[in-house]
Amino acid sequence: MHLVVIGGVAAGMSAASRARRLDRDAQITVLERSSVVSYGACGLPYWISGVVDDAEELIVHPPEFFERERGIRVRTNTRVAEVAPARRRVLLEGGEELLYDRLVIATGARPVALPVPGAELPHCFRFHTWDDAHRLDAFLREQRPASAAIVGAGFVGLEMAEALLARGLRVTLFDQASHFLGWRDEWLSERIQNLLRTAGVELRLGRAVREIGSKEVDGVPADVVILSPGIAPNTELASAAGITLGRRGAIVVNEFLETNISGIFAAGDCAETFHLLLNAPSWIALGTTANKMGRVAGANAIGRKERFPGVVGTSILRVCGLAVGVTGLSELSAREAGFRPVTAAVEARNRPSYFGGKQVSVKLVVDSASGRLLGGAVTGEEGVEGRVNVLATAITAGLRAEEFQFADLCYSPPYATVWDPLLIAAQQAMHKLG
Amino acid sequence: MHLVVIGGVAAGMSAASRARRLDRDAQITVLERSSVVSYGACGLPYWISGVVDDAEELIVHPPEFFERERGIRVRTNTRVAEVAPARRRVLLEGGEELLYDRLVIATGARPVALPVPGAELPHCFRFHTWDDAHRLDAFLREQRPASAAIVGAGFVGLEMAEALLARGLRVTLFDQASHFLGWRDEWLSERIQNLLRTAGVELRLGRAVREIGSKEVDGVPADVVILSPGIAPNTELASAAGITLGRRGAIVVNEFLETNISGIFAAGDCAETFHLLLNAPSWIALGTTANKMGRVAGANAIGRKERFPGVVGTSILRVCGLAVGVTGLSELSAREAGFRPVTAAVEARNRPSYFGGKQVSVKLVVDSASGRLLGGAVTGEEGVEGRVNVLATAITAGLRAEEFQFADLCYSPPYATVWDPLLIAAQQAMHKLG
Repeated sequence: MHLVVIGGVAAGMSAASRARRLDRDAQITVLERSSVVSYGACGLPYWISGVVDDAEELIVHPPEFFERERGIRVRTNTRVAEVAPARRRVLLEGGEELLYDRLVIATGARPVALPVPGAELPHCFRFHTWDDAHRLDAFLREQRPASAAIVGAGFVGLEMAEALLARGLRVTLFDQASHFLGWRDEWLSERIQNLLRTAGVELRLGRAVREIGSKEVDGVPADVVILSPGIAPNTELASAAGITLGRRGAIVVNEFLETNISGIFAAGDCAETFHLLLNAPSWIALGTTANKMGRVAGANAIGRKERFPGVVGTSILRVCGLAVGVTGLSELSAREAGFRPVTAAVEARNRPSYFGGKQVSVKLVVDSASGRLLGGAVTGEEGVEGRVNVLATAITAGLRAEEFQFADLCYSPPYATVWDPLLIAAQQAMHKLG
Repeated sequence: MHLVVIGGVAAGMSAASRARRLDRDAQITVLERSSVVSYGACGLPYWISGVVDDAEELIVHPPEFFERERGIRVRTNTRVAEVAPARRRVLLEGGEELLYDRLVIATGARPVALPVPGAELPHCFRFHTWDDAHRLDAFLREQRPASAAIVGAGFVGLEMAEALLARGLRVTLFDQASHFLGWRDEWLSERIQNLLRTAGVELRLGRAVREIGSKEVDGVPADVVILSPGIAPNTELASAAGITLGRRGAIVVNEFLETNISGIFAAGDCAETFHLLLNAPSWIALGTTANKMGRVAGANAIGRKERFPGVVGTSILRVCGLAVGVTGLSELSAREAGFRPVTAAVEARNRPSYFGGKQVSVKLVVDSASGRLLGGAVTGEEGVEGRVNVLATAITAGLRAEEFQFADLCYSPPYATVWDPLLIAAQQAMHKLG
C-alpha cells in the first residue's frame, strides 16, 4: 500500500502522520514543492515582528524527523506536474512517475493576483509562504524602508500591520471594503478600526487601490508594499486530473474527505469543508481546519471510515495587541442564510475590577425563530480565545440562548466575574426575543 | 405587593434587583443581619493576601445605593427571629413584624463547627463573612504571627494558604482527606499537592486533627489557626417555618425555585440546586450559582415563571498562583452515579512554544455507554477558565466525545495551538472507547 500526499504543511503532514499511526506497514511519501515541511505558517508574521527570534522555531519537525521517526518519505523541492488517476500515478516535474494506491491532495492555497498597475514592482511582496517571509525580511533588513502600504485587510494584512509597526515602519492599510474577517458588521468593524488607528495605522478603506508606484500607493508614501488581497485554492492539478471543484474553486469532498475519484482524498486550504450552520459545503481556509481535515483524510486514506463533521467558522487574530475572535454567522450572513437574527452587544469586564479586570466586548447573533445561538464576535485584551471557544461549542451543540444564559461557567475573582460577559449578552438577546 | 428578601449578599441582592427591574411598583425590603450587603465575599482572601488593597473595593454597592437608585429598602444589622407563613409575616429580633406577599430566603451558609479541642481558642478564626475577614486581618496586623495552621482544604482553606503565604507566614494545611474539591481524584490531588508543596505549604493530609494548642496544632507550630472544615446551609429559620429541607439540610425548591410553601422562594447557598448530570437535586454552594438562582427567584417572586435549569458543578480556584478548575462529574462520582466512565489525561501547551506557551493539564471523564462528556479537570498557569467553560458548555449540551474532538475552536499563535489540549484529550478518550 503506497500512500502519496501532495503538500507537506498543515493538512499534508497531519494526513501522513495519522496514516502512519494507524498503519505501521504502509509506504508513505510526502511531496512538497518548497524546501520546508511541517512549519507553523501562521507564525510567520510574528517572526517578522520580532516576537519569534528565529524562523527555525516555527518548524515543528525537519523532514529528516519524519523519515527517521515515522518512516515517512518526505521529498522537498519536488513539484508535481500531473496526477493521472486512471493509471494511479503522480508525475513529477522532471519526468519521474510515482505509483500510488491512495492519494491525499493537500496543495493549500495561494494569494490571488492583484490586478493593479505596479503590483509587480520589486518592492511589492506577497506574504504566504516560508520563502515569501524570508524575501520580505531580507528586503526590510537591507533596504530599511520607512513606510509600508498593505493592500488587503484580511488575516495577513491585519497581522502584517502589527508586524511592520513593530519593525518601526509607518503603516497604511488599504482595503476595498471597510469590513473585516468576512463579518461585514458595523459593530466589529468599528472596534477593529479603532484598534488599528490607536496603534498608529493609517486606514484607507472602502475604495480599491488604483496604482502602485515605486515610492507610493495612490499618493501615500510606501517604500515597501504587502499584497494581501486574499487567497484562492491551489487546485489546478486536481482539476486537470478530473477532480470536481466547487463554486470557489476548492475541491469538493464528501464527509470522509474523499473526492469524486475513489481513492483520492483532499484536505486543508485546497478543499471545501462543511459549514454546520449553513448546512452546506463552504470554503474556509484556516490552519486549524487544515490539521483536522488532514487527520481524517489520512485515516480514511489507509482504510478507516472517519467522518469530518465540519466547522462553524471560528477564527481569532491579534490586531495591534488586542484579540479579535469570531465564530458562527454574522448578523448579515445569518440573514442571507434565511435566519431572522436578533443581536445583543455588551461590554463587560473579564474579572472584577478589584482584580484588574479588562474590558471584553461581545456581540451575539441569535435566531429569533428557534432561539438558537448562530454566531458571536468577541474582542478584548484578555480571555477572548476562551469565550470564542465557549460560543463555538454552544453553537456546534445547537444551544438556544435560553439554555445558554444559565450556563454553569466558572467563577473566582482571579479568573472571572459572577456573570460572564457571554451570559450577559445572552440575557440581553433573550430580552429582545421577548 | 411587598417582597421581603432575607439575606443581602449574592442571591438576596440579585433577587431584589431583578424583581425591581421587572416590577417598578413592588415594595421591596432586604433584611441583612451584618453591616454590609452586596459584596464580593469570594474576594476576601485576596484582601487578606494584599492583592486587593482595601476591603471596600469588594463592595459592589453600599446599602444607600439600592435605596436611592433602585428603590429597594435595605435594612442591615437586622436579624430575623421567625418566619410565620400562615400569617405571611417575618418577625425581627426585637419584636417588629413585617407583612410580606412574597418571600425570598437567601440566608446563605456558614462554616460548620470543628469538634476538636482548642477550636474555640482566641487565635482560631473562621473565614466566611466580611466580619470574619476583618477580625483575622486585625489579628495578623496586631499579633504578627509567624506560622499558620489551616484546618480544612476546601476552597477557603486553599485560598487562605496562598493568602497567608503572601503575608509572610509559614503555612501548614491539614485535612482529613487527601483529595480536593470533591473530586476524589488521584490525578487532580497529585497536581494540587505539588502546587502547594512547590509554593512552600506544609501538608498534613489524610488524618483528622486531634488537638489545637495555643501555639501548635498536633505538634506543628501555629500562631494563628484558620478553621475551614466546610460549610452547611443556614436553614434553621426555614425549617422552623415548615419549609422542607433536603438530605444535606438545604432548602428543597422546584425548578421555579419555590419552596413547598407557596409564595416563599429560596436561592443561593441555603437552597438545593439541580444537577444536570445526576438528574437530581444537589447542594452546591457557589457564588455564581447563588447569583443565577437569585435572579430567577426574584423574577418568579414578582409573578414570572422562569425556570432555573440547574448546574453541572463548575468551579475554579487559584492555588498558589495556578488555576485549578473542574466541571461535571469526577471519575468516581460518575461511577457512583451509575455511569461507566473512561478517562483521558493530557499535558499540552496553551500556545505554541515559540509564543511562550504554558503547560495545561486536562483530565476528561467520558461515559463509555453513551460516549458523552461527563466531566473535566483543568490546571495550569493560563487559559484554564476558558477551557473549563468550554467543557461546561459541552457537558451541558450533552456533546459526545466523538462530536467534541472536532470542535471548531479558534487558532492563532498568540492565543492557541492548532490542537487544543481539550481536543487532544477528547481524541485520547475516543481511542479508549475503541
